[in-house]
Amino acid sequence: MLIECIPNVSEGRRPEVVAALADTIRSTPGVHLLDFSSDASHNRSVFTLVGDAAGVEAAVIALFERALASIDLRTHKGEHPRLGAVDVVPFVPIEGATMADCVALARRVGAIVAERFQLPVYLYEEASTNPARKNLEDIRRGEFEGLAAKMASPEWAPDFGPAVPHASAGATVIGARMPLIAYNINLATDRLDVAKKIAAAIRHSSGGFRFVKAAGFMLADRGIVQVSMNLTNYEKTPIFRVFEVVKREAARYGVQVLESEIVGLIPSAALHAAAEHYLQIEGFKPDQVLEAKLKLKG
Amino acid sequence: MLIECIPNVSEGRRPEVVAALADTIRSTPGVHLLDFSSDASHNRSVFTLVGDAAGVEAAVIALFERALASIDLRTHKGEHPRLGAVDVVPFVPIEGATMADCVALARRVGAIVAERFQLPVYLYEEASTNPARKNLEDIRRGEFEGLAAKMASPEWAPDFGPAVPHASAGATVIGARMPLIAYNINLATDRLDVAKKIAAAIRHSSGGFRFVKAAGFMLADRGIVQVSMNLTNYEKTPIFRVFEVVKREAARYGVQVLESEIVGLIPSAALHAAAEHYLQIEGFKPDQVLEAKLKLKG
Repeated sequence: MLIECIPNVSEGRRPEVVAALADTIRSTPGVHLLDFSSDASHNRSVFTLVGDAAGVEAAVIALFERALASIDLRTHKGEHPRLGAVDVVPFVPIEGATMADCVALARRVGAIVAERFQLPVYLYEEASTNPARKNLEDIRRGEFEGLAAKMASPEWAPDFGPAVPHASAGATVIGARMPLIAYNINLATDRLDVAKKIAAAIRHSSGGFRFVKAAGFMLADRGIVQVSMNLTNYEKTPIFRVFEVVKREAARYGVQVLESEIVGLIPSAALHAAAEHYLQIEGFKPDQVLEAKLKLKG
Repeated sequence: MLIECIPNVSEGRRPEVVAALADTIRSTPGVHLLDFSSDASHNRSVFTLVGDAAGVEAAVIALFERALASIDLRTHKGEHPRLGAVDVVPFVPIEGATMADCVALARRVGAIVAERFQLPVYLYEEASTNPARKNLEDIRRGEFEGLAAKMASPEWAPDFGPAVPHASAGATVIGARMPLIAYNINLATDRLDVAKKIAAAIRHSSGGFRFVKAAGFMLADRGIVQVSMNLTNYEKTPIFRVFEVVKREAARYGVQVLESEIVGLIPSAALHAAAEHYLQIEGFKPDQVLEAKLKLKG
């Protein structure tokens, strides 16, 4: 069973601190650190690790310990909104793991770090226990600086830990979600209004697909516009359906799709689903993929 | 490095002989037997194994030894054409292996089995040393019964081994090829002539795509027709291009594509290429596939 975890930590300017956090993950048995990157203007780093449930749990708890010892939000500045030293910790099912496994892991890790570090923990997305606290943006609104006032309200009592912020580490948001696909479609036009209208048409918040976040941007250096998206559940809102609707909406303005791009990683199954759709493949089973079959035998 | 090998053996009616051949492969270190199946009317069995070059080589040589001890083509009957007790042995590059690796392995195994068992060996497809002997069908024409007469001609001197047939085991065809995709497209019509015309339009032998073999069939129980294909090089003749041409050709007769189907295994990359094509994805790299990234780290 493989689970991915993508902790977001509020430190992106001191490389030695980030390197120590990466080493903490790397030195945990049963876990691989796939990637990490820091953004100085955001003053934030993102780590991507995978492993079995026990390995990921151990690595994340060790990461909390190291991060809380070296990060103080009272002196932290950055462009990205944040609530805590370890700001957000999503668990994502990859291979042989279910969403239920990730929800259970999120709650278990939340309970442990709340207890061990006296840190308030909010559960979000699939691990949420409260519909009003499913969205990360809602939980994080007001940020670290507004946290004490926010937590004074009973509706913002945390899922685990004390009902007041940790003095230096604030609070942490832990949860479970599907793999996120960062997907952009570039249009053969410089009309930003078209990109913005299409983004509004397809995103959930304004009436579009349930698992799409979207915005329209100008790519000034290329003289074209982009519909930039996060697909938050590629099983329920598949990439091909989003692409086809963007293409149709663009055509309505006399605009063609120039190209699309996948930013970062994509689960193989999301690409297979697109192939199945366009090739009209019926009755396909995942174990017909040669590499999957090899893995089962390996 | 992973190489796949799919030996075709001329025995499909004696389960104990087939089971012993499967055991021979299974007991070779460094090799996994992915699958095997027998066809009684063909009197033939097909084994699918994968492993590193050394493992596959050892398994195939052991398979020859066992097969030659238990199969006598002088008393063999079956519908499928065959030249030898071990009839055809293709090596296929899978992961981290190139076609050149498979050609080298085919020639090495060919030389060893020719020497050890005094068996004539013909090299075919990518391992062929002679353009007139690239196609399996050409080499196999005349079958076991016509082999002595055929080999009397200098142009049919084998690549390895004696210039006369092995008394009980005939000759063997060994080579290297790309993974083969068995791909069918079902049409929403009962007009067999349409399926046959489309098959003729897309197959290499009558002017179609270089790496397509195709035939039209009636699926009597469903009242529809099928264009049944083997795609012999999905990199050079991609599945999406074949599908689109079949769809266009069918439309010319007022016929729609009902569905398509993958029979057996397909390399993940063949599905990814279809997704890239239809979604117009630019700049995609194989290591953006999450599972590939995990494997690199694993």
